[in-house]
Amino acid sequence: MNRQLFFFLVGGSFLLAAYAHYFTDNELFRFATASLAIIFLAAWLGKSTESVAHYAGDRIGGFLNATFGNAAELIIAFFLVKEGLFDMVKASITGAVIGNMLLVLGLSVLLGGLKFKEQTFNSKLAGHNGSLMTLAIVALFIPAVFMQQLPPAEIGTLSIVISVVLIIAYLLWLIFSMVTHREFLSDIEPHESEAEWSKGVSILMLALSTVFVAIVSEWLVHSVEHVSQSLGWSELFVGAFVIAIIGNAAEHSAALLLAMKGRIGAAVEIAIGSSLQIALFVAPTLVLISLLLGQPMDIVFTPFELAAIGVATFITISITKDGATNWYEGVLLLTVYIIIGTAFFFV
Amino acid sequence: MNRQLFFFLVGGSFLLAAYAHYFTDNELFRFATASLAIIFLAAWLGKSTESVAHYAGDRIGGFLNATFGNAAELIIAFFLVKEGLFDMVKASITGAVIGNMLLVLGLSVLLGGLKFKEQTFNSKLAGHNGSLMTLAIVALFIPAVFMQQLPPAEIGTLSIVISVVLIIAYLLWLIFSMVTHREFLSDIEPHESEAEWSKGVSILMLALSTVFVAIVSEWLVHSVEHVSQSLGWSELFVGAFVIAIIGNAAEHSAALLLAMKGRIGAAVEIAIGSSLQIALFVAPTLVLISLLLGQPMDIVFTPFELAAIGVATFITISITKDGATNWYEGVLLLTVYIIIGTAFFFV
Amino acid sequence: MNRQLFFFLVGGSFLLAAYAHYFTDNELFRFATASLAIIFLAAWLGKSTESVAHYAGDRIGGFLNATFGNAAELIIAFFLVKEGLFDMVKASITGAVIGNMLLVLGLSVLLGGLKFKEQTFNSKLAGHNGSLMTLAIVALFIPAVFMQQLPPAEIGTLSIVISVVLIIAYLLWLIFSMVTHREFLSDIEPHESEAEWSKGVSILMLALSTVFVAIVSEWLVHSVEHVSQSLGWSELFVGAFVIAIIGNAAEHSAALLLAMKGRIGAAVEIAIGSSLQIALFVAPTLVLISLLLGQPMDIVFTPFELAAIGVATFITISITKDGATNWYEGVLLLTVYIIIGTAFFFV
Repeated sequence: MNRQLFFFLVGGSFLLAAYAHYFTDNELFRFATASLAIIFLAAWLGKSTESVAHYAGDRIGGFLNATFGNAAELIIAFFLVKEGLFDMVKASITGAVIGNMLLVLGLSVLLGGLKFKEQTFNSKLAGHNGSLMTLAIVALFIPAVFMQQLPPAEIGTLSIVISVVLIIAYLLWLIFSMVTHREFLSDIEPHESEAEWSKGVSILMLALSTVFVAIVSEWLVHSVEHVSQSLGWSELFVGAFVIAIIGNAAEHSAALLLAMKGRIGAAVEIAIGSSLQIALFVAPTLVLISLLLGQPMDIVFTPFELAAIGVATFITISITKDGATNWYEGVLLLTVYIIIGTAFFFV
Repeated sequence: MNRQLFFFLVGGSFLLAAYAHYFTDNELFRFATASLAIIFLAAWLGKSTESVAHYAGDRIGGFLNATFGNAAELIIAFFLVKEGLFDMVKASITGAVIGNMLLVLGLSVLLGGLKFKEQTFNSKLAGHNGSLMTLAIVALFIPAVFMQQLPPAEIGTLSIVISVVLIIAYLLWLIFSMVTHREFLSDIEPHESEAEWSKGVSILMLALSTVFVAIVSEWLVHSVEHVSQSLGWSELFVGAFVIAIIGNAAEHSAALLLAMKGRIGAAVEIAIGSSLQIALFVAPTLVLISLLLGQPMDIVFTPFELAAIGVATFITISITKDGATNWYEGVLLLTVYIIIGTAFFFV
Repeated sequence: MNRQLFFFLVGGSFLLAAYAHYFTDNELFRFATASLAIIFLAAWLGKSTESVAHYAGDRIGGFLNATFGNAAELIIAFFLVKEGLFDMVKASITGAVIGNMLLVLGLSVLLGGLKFKEQTFNSKLAGHNGSLMTLAIVALFIPAVFMQQLPPAEIGTLSIVISVVLIIAYLLWLIFSMVTHREFLSDIEPHESEAEWSKGVSILMLALSTVFVAIVSEWLVHSVEHVSQSLGWSELFVGAFVIAIIGNAAEHSAALLLAMKGRIGAAVEIAIGSSLQIALFVAPTLVLISLLLGQPMDIVFTPFELAAIGVATFITISITKDGATNWYEGVLLLTVYIIIGTAFFFV
């Protein structure tokens, strides 16, 4: 996209959201404009992160991309935690995981599959991703199984222990995939792109875009409860399907564009990588942040959310483990997404 | 089998069932004779479907086999739905799925494995079947997870949505496996058989056999409740182990014969294909039919049934994913069948 | 280890345990000394079994190793059953399974992986182990699912049927892996070791070590309840993490030593083989023994235990199925072990 048009859209959508926030009372309008602004601001934040990563060199750059890739999602969730909307935080984590694994991967595989009879990718990466997703599920599943027998204080302690363990496991994964076993896994050819901006501008852009995302996220979170009530949608549905899609829209479109160019491996890496990052890094980080904010959130998900994450992972592993995809596998992923979405809508 | 002997058995068993139905009071005798007649009539219906499929050409013929392959099962279930015996319908669906995946596949793999040290087949097909079975489980599992929080009306709506989605996914699977990716999957050499009958006779045979199956299915269903009570067997056991075996006996024997000839690929395709057809096509079709009959049945299975279908699928995927089988894998499948059967018997 | 030093440690630890048992009242001291003695006695029992197996020839020797490999675990559990400490028996079975699959395999893979970039092993064996573990889970899972609807008497009958079926499946597995398909599976080069002792001495050693393990096991079991209470640890935690580790320490160190020599295939075979033996042979044998002792124990595990065994198996299959390991996969296994251990500790 043309650079000027892009900044026009970022700026315009931000001004519209600001107007709605300060000069109107219509919560639905406020929510819609804030959502639109977040989508563009998140894209700006993504570009800035990549640009800074470019200057930081391969390793630190890869690390930046891997930990700040879901920065917009994390910032929105931060304000949800601050407001005590824990159910919506967990729903948005669930929605981001299944949105990446079912919706984005499903569309990528389907659209790529309509153009190419069979697309292949590094199945070693797929195997590792499967094992990591299994760890994520185990980590989220265990506290839910044990919760009913434990008093709240111990659930809190257990949540902290599990969060710390998951963050350590995630950091070790970064070392594994970027340092010790880099050549085993990567499927994305290094993009030899010129940087969008100079080094100084990139850092400034990253700081600025983060601040703007934070500002609009706060507006978004203020209106989200009213919207949930006035439309009669459950917190589960709003978190899992509205918030999650807004926070991940920029990444989603990137994965789709890659898949349609035949680069299914890169699309799989983005979609599953983002899911892993959310489950293994964003979720436990939010638990630890909630402690600092003085409103501790536990890591216990509802059975619906666990079922959704579990089945999404199960079918994604089943489809990606052979390192090849075709259009029907995209249909399968989307079918599961529709079934889960329908169920969440009715709850 | 000799054609004359076959029709003698079909006709004789039908007449015996008719005699029992109209002239005797013994429900057990009525049930036994109706069961026997169904087994032969289902074989006749199967032969007629294949013969019509032969004349219809490869694509439409394949479609006919894929959608009417479980016609006898569907017709029996139709009368169970009409009588409101929903628990038995679901038990018979469960029983047909696990009967195909554990009993038939287990016996096929065991008997084939006693003759041949290792038998191999197209592992791509096995992979796809695994993904489809995973979809089937997800689809049946999700409504059960969400059910306890939803009022009956919404369960009904959710059941209809899921049923429609599953039928669409099944039809797309047929397009995938018979049109766009045919050559990827098939393992069965086209059988160059001459048709059993002329085109006109085949169609007549199909119509006649369907009517006869329907007549005897109605008799069977009338006596099944009495039998369940007088033998002290649970509806779950009768549905899952008696009805399911009667409705699938013809297919079962076909798979076994192929396995013993060393054609394990064809046996796997029949056993798993039939399970998929039941879970993804027969079950949702029955939900939609129940609406038309004015007695809506939901798609919510009991935890026992889901556990049985889930573990059967899990171990079948585990065993078939390498595209090779040996006798011990047959033992494993049969062991799981015995364990589930024993548990169902005690409930 | 030097033979004299070894017997000095065996004898010394036994005498210390005897002193604690007969001349002190401190239950913690009694428990600690008995535990220490068991560790050395179990190592002695293991050496004796191997030595007898050496003289018995390949087949019967393999059978001996496969059925008496967990003899110490079985003897301790026998006394727990006799005391009616069923919860602790099941916890120790759970702990032995997850200890082998997560702790031992995790450490083996991690330590091996720090020395070697990638270690490979026979993936056919991994596939079969995965299928067998799936059977074990199914077998333990089914009675738990059905339990709530069944009266205790039927749970008892169901437990016996399942136990007999599992033992038969295990014996058939021995025939498969040692007789009919031996060459498919083995990864361990036959160790051409000289026997430790002469034939007669070996048999005497086996008898003696079994008796000593039995004596000290009884002491251990007498003090275990007091220890559980005085330390405030749950029966679940003591069984799963203390008893299980004591009973399996000898095997654990053997697997670790092999992994560090680069023989990861042998380490995997010991760790998973031992898990299988416990789930498919030790657990059902204890159910049958409990009948003979007149205090019938059922085969119903708690949801926590099943969750722990299930997730351990799931992630172990996920990691071993490609027949290759690296250090990060060890981290994953250990992470899951820590998460489960923490949860068990809090219950």
